[in-house]
Amino acid sequence: MAEPLSTDPYKGVRDFYPADWRKMDALFSRIRETLLAWGYEEYNASPLERAELYEAKTSEEIVSEQTYTFMDRGDRKVTLRPEMTPTLARMVANKRRELAFPLRWFSIGNRFRYERPQKGRLREFYQADIDLVGLAEGEADIEIVRLASAILKAFGAAESDFVIRVNSRALLNAACKAAGLTGGDVRQYLRLLDKKAKMTPEAFVAASATISAKDPLSFIKPEAMETFIAKLAASGVGNAVFDPGITRGFDYYTGMVFEVYDTNPANPRALFGGGRYDGLVALWGGDPIPAVGFALGDVTLADFLETHGLLPKLNFGKPQLYIGTPKESDIPAAQAFADTLRAKGARVFVNLGTRALGDQIKDAVKRGIPYFAAYGADEVTSNTIRMKVLATGEEINLPVNELPARLRAGN
Amino acid sequence: MAEPLSTDPYKGVRDFYPADWRKMDALFSRIRETLLAWGYEEYNASPLERAELYEAKTSEEIVSEQTYTFMDRGDRKVTLRPEMTPTLARMVANKRRELAFPLRWFSIGNRFRYERPQKGRLREFYQADIDLVGLAEGEADIEIVRLASAILKAFGAAESDFVIRVNSRALLNAACKAAGLTGGDVRQYLRLLDKKAKMTPEAFVAASATISAKDPLSFIKPEAMETFIAKLAASGVGNAVFDPGITRGFDYYTGMVFEVYDTNPANPRALFGGGRYDGLVALWGGDPIPAVGFALGDVTLADFLETHGLLPKLNFGKPQLYIGTPKESDIPAAQAFADTLRAKGARVFVNLGTRALGDQIKDAVKRGIPYFAAYGADEVTSNTIRMKVLATGEEINLPVNELPARLRAGN
Repeated sequence: MAEPLSTDPYKGVRDFYPADWRKMDALFSRIRETLLAWGYEEYNASPLERAELYEAKTSEEIVSEQTYTFMDRGDRKVTLRPEMTPTLARMVANKRRELAFPLRWFSIGNRFRYERPQKGRLREFYQADIDLVGLAEGEADIEIVRLASAILKAFGAAESDFVIRVNSRALLNAACKAAGLTGGDVRQYLRLLDKKAKMTPEAFVAASATISAKDPLSFIKPEAMETFIAKLAASGVGNAVFDPGITRGFDYYTGMVFEVYDTNPANPRALFGGGRYDGLVALWGGDPIPAVGFALGDVTLADFLETHGLLPKLNFGKPQLYIGTPKESDIPAAQAFADTLRAKGARVFVNLGTRALGDQIKDAVKRGIPYFAAYGADEVTSNTIRMKVLATGEEINLPVNELPARLRAGN
Repeated sequence: MAEPLSTDPYKGVRDFYPADWRKMDALFSRIRETLLAWGYEEYNASPLERAELYEAKTSEEIVSEQTYTFMDRGDRKVTLRPEMTPTLARMVANKRRELAFPLRWFSIGNRFRYERPQKGRLREFYQADIDLVGLAEGEADIEIVRLASAILKAFGAAESDFVIRVNSRALLNAACKAAGLTGGDVRQYLRLLDKKAKMTPEAFVAASATISAKDPLSFIKPEAMETFIAKLAASGVGNAVFDPGITRGFDYYTGMVFEVYDTNPANPRALFGGGRYDGLVALWGGDPIPAVGFALGDVTLADFLETHGLLPKLNFGKPQLYIGTPKESDIPAAQAFADTLRAKGARVFVNLGTRALGDQIKDAVKRGIPYFAAYGADEVTSNTIRMKVLATGEEINLPVNELPARLRAGN
């Protein structure tokens, strides 16, 4: 090769070095724990989907401008999933006769959109999709909003840190109708409303006037949403408010919709959101199966947690003990000793190189491993080890069989 | 839409319903635990890679016939990663000045190959890639083979269940040279050797004769591998054998190579394998960085474990308790009660529908949830719950505050 290869990743996607992946893992492990505690079960699917899946129902903008779509070697049109909900609906439709409804399902994984890369917008992002399928509005909608709140609270967020803005597509549709809009105009108005936050008030009013002579939002009947918010408050969610301007981008929503916002005015973007989509599964035939859900992306969540000082500690899964080897010939005995600790659940890194012990200690510090112990002929004989606490320099002599408990206590 | 959409996934990939994903999770969680205990750290990257990454060094067959390669909307040539090693090498090259070597890294995720789908061959499969980067042969090679063995043993496999066939590309190259082969002929011969298991002995001999007048394998000098195997035996791996026919498919291997085989003669395929590739990182410039590693796929591993009765139990993450609601109006109190259990780590499914309690019990059984308890006005008053063990029909009365401990003990 004449020219050296570039070491950069493909444009708009990220490499996750171990410290980066620990951060992702810390986020999604906490989310997974909460979801499992609520009786939700994890599913998954390939990011490769037949393109027709999105042509059917995802928002027009995403399909025509933002998907990765290509022909495979067998001339099938394939899309890398830009979102998970169509896949979920397809899977539910595929086994609708066998599945025990309601389904409480979630999936954590990557989604792909061909966008111009910028802060917070990447071509690949990670998302948790959470859905409750098979129940009409009512307690199911309440559970989903409570769960969205519970996830943020599981990271230590207080209700004062975020607000849940709720609305209803059914109410919006009725208001549009009352204002005299029909068919395509309703859809056009809802899409405009979804973009409102990114426009100046004047631009919004001007664009709105081209669609509707009257302001559809003035026809909203808020009573149903007020009852919903009161129920949420009674069940421990005190920071939900009615916001007739919330619509969500996707065409498939039919009922309650919500978006969670950071209360910090410096971060006015929606953190995440979701809603009810009762018509999607019926695209594959059969009776409609009602569903409600939401999705939570890694980038906005991490930003929110960082702003509020709530990012989980990042030592999850890191090695706890660095075993130094005075001589190369000590390595087999050190590995055998490490095996006894590993069998008891300790995470142990063994030096395999030939550098001096002092350099091995420096190496342990550089790696952020909290404890260091040399293991050579003396330790084999004495069955005692001298463990160095690298943060303080303190040294502890202890019998080797006490080491696993000490490591557990120390981490 | 005139025609209903198909509910099938894209050809050659799998949908993972919760029971399927639990199986994957059980496999890779066990592998992850073992790797963390050995001081390995998890990294990750996007499956989208610039196509040139594979054009440089992956096997010709994979690049020209088996990759998913397409042009993005900005006319960049993109490949869905067919394997992880080139990505690893790229990431290492990208931060070679900052990283603390040796690296003990692993990554678990999906890989893509455009193959004709058949049993055990899918267009998307999951794989754990494990690498030790920055150390030359010797203790590093020993650790990698020991770790491959430790992973199978962590599932309960005995050494009699599998055999580790080891060889060396360096030895093979030297033998080819001694037999008079040069350059392209060596590569051609090694590729033929890699396909030997899929050919009749006669076809192999005939094809071999077109490349080389002499049998290169008769020139192998086995002493170095015999020493290696003796060291493995001394360090607890008693089922490694020398096999001069092992080459591994990829062009980038330079030293020790190995493949793990099921000893069950009904399953003659390699389960997984790996080897040393000291030249790969230097493709991006700079001094070579030696590396050794292996990769383990979900399909062959699951087949092996199933054959030997070693598949892990699949209740990981399933709900433990089904809370029944006598009346719909009991749901808020039932959810609040569930929250107290969730906060203590229990996994709780709350009925939200309106069906009769008897049907709720049947529903719990269908879902495989082990315990059932109704929660209505009586339970709110008495603070006592009657929990039904669904496997036996036994009923236990207990104070609600004893429930979390009981659930932990029962699962």
